[in-house]
Amino acid sequence: MFERVAIIGLGLIGGSLARALRAKHLVKEIVGCGRDVTNLERGMALGVIDRQTTNPAEAVQGADLVVLAMTLGATGEILRQIAPSLAPQALVTDVGSTKQSVVDAARATLGAAFPRFVPGHPIAGGEKSGVEASTATLFERHRVILTPVSETAPDAVEIVRRMWEATGAEVTLMEVGHHDEVLAATSHLPHLLAFALVDCLATGENGQQRGEIFDYAAGGFRDFTRIASSNPDMWRDIALANRTALTKMCTQFETTLAALKTAIAREDAATVHATFARAKKARDDYLARRGLT
Amino acid sequence: MFERVAIIGLGLIGGSLARALRAKHLVKEIVGCGRDVTNLERGMALGVIDRQTTNPAEAVQGADLVVLAMTLGATGEILRQIAPSLAPQALVTDVGSTKQSVVDAARATLGAAFPRFVPGHPIAGGEKSGVEASTATLFERHRVILTPVSETAPDAVEIVRRMWEATGAEVTLMEVGHHDEVLAATSHLPHLLAFALVDCLATGENGQQRGEIFDYAAGGFRDFTRIASSNPDMWRDIALANRTALTKMCTQFETTLAALKTAIAREDAATVHATFARAKKARDDYLARRGLT
Repeated sequence: MFERVAIIGLGLIGGSLARALRAKHLVKEIVGCGRDVTNLERGMALGVIDRQTTNPAEAVQGADLVVLAMTLGATGEILRQIAPSLAPQALVTDVGSTKQSVVDAARATLGAAFPRFVPGHPIAGGEKSGVEASTATLFERHRVILTPVSETAPDAVEIVRRMWEATGAEVTLMEVGHHDEVLAATSHLPHLLAFALVDCLATGENGQQRGEIFDYAAGGFRDFTRIASSNPDMWRDIALANRTALTKMCTQFETTLAALKTAIAREDAATVHATFARAKKARDDYLARRGLT
Repeated sequence: MFERVAIIGLGLIGGSLARALRAKHLVKEIVGCGRDVTNLERGMALGVIDRQTTNPAEAVQGADLVVLAMTLGATGEILRQIAPSLAPQALVTDVGSTKQSVVDAARATLGAAFPRFVPGHPIAGGEKSGVEASTATLFERHRVILTPVSETAPDAVEIVRRMWEATGAEVTLMEVGHHDEVLAATSHLPHLLAFALVDCLATGENGQQRGEIFDYAAGGFRDFTRIASSNPDMWRDIALANRTALTKMCTQFETTLAALKTAIAREDAATVHATFARAKKARDDYLARRGLT
């Protein structure tokens, strides 16, 4: 499928895509690029990549596919660095968790090459990061959302779609703004709430840290706050890149929470019960639809 | 340790305590009481209880220990029903998730027997409920908090403490109000947030149900919302019983969230990162202290 794939950012996602492309015999040569030489060397030793470089412009030379898999906050800068070195027919795609910010950066930097940029987002990940945590099966039965815009070349979208499907993923096309709203709701806002809750509990009213409160936390708390152990750098970038959709969704949530708090304070048992029961049904229904429990 | 234990409410907690007392040979006879005859018969068939009745006053006759393990909202009514039938030296304890409301109800109903009431809360549970889900090992390495008040007889506290320790639990004594604040923070508020989030997402701005938004949810969302699949009846009772501490904690959380939202809207990257990093550290530290990851 590809002669040479350049992967910028050899973390969990970039490394897993490299492994999957290799496992499916979709690529002859994989060039890994990143700032952390030790990580690149590990990628070489693990056989995840064939060549390594810390220079993005060098990495993309002669590549027919370039995958941007580094931290979201570096998108504009990396695009500026690689734009002059892209091969004429090279496809570029990315794995960023927000899409409008990436589309804006690509439009501003890629010029005539912009139609061959396919914005993408594999909804996969995990608490562990880095190339050691990568696996060839990470994307199997996971969703990948592509958000082509009016300028995007249909054949470019088709190639990127087939690539992701080959890794076992289920590909969906979505409008950019809709993607950012859906992900604000199902991913970015939950992370915001988890970070805010743990910070609120750990920092008492007087501003003192009080870790001992967690000693009485049960299993439900551990699950609920799991995403608060996510990478703060990555999530700062996501929160800021998707700030419009995220703050809007946060305001909706604040309204729901305030209504629930008022119902509790007024001992309005019927409203409290109805809210809880509606939520339980919505969650149980979504799990049932996906065959989960 | 006990001749006859009466367990009012044969669910996951009541059933597990019955099994643990039996496994440790701490009781000669266990009387199970509940409204659901089918569940009681299942408890008989499983050997969890020796006798069954739907009449609480009958259940407690001749019992030297009475355990209130039914839904929190029934506490006052059950105490009224059993008070006249308690044996003179009977101990009474409970497993309710809030303690001030239970102490108030016990003080109002038990009269001269109130000093032999030991308010308790095993921090254990699970998504599954009912006597079939019960196990003799549910409390092993879990916390049980006892919240005796000034009137509570020290020897009664000591017996209840030893009973829980025999099940493998780690017993802590705590002041009633402090218990309710700690649990509001680590359990009741997280449930409120999970219920509110799922309800907010499932109910669009126009009030229409939109379950399809969950189709793009990843594993983190499933963990984050697990507690939104909890029993709405049980959680309505808890939220209302602990409304003072819960609404206070909710207000603290709203303040933290509002500050974070403002920082995101203003693109204040430093504040956003500091909040996320503080939360991650607090959570990682608490897991490390408990030997978890």
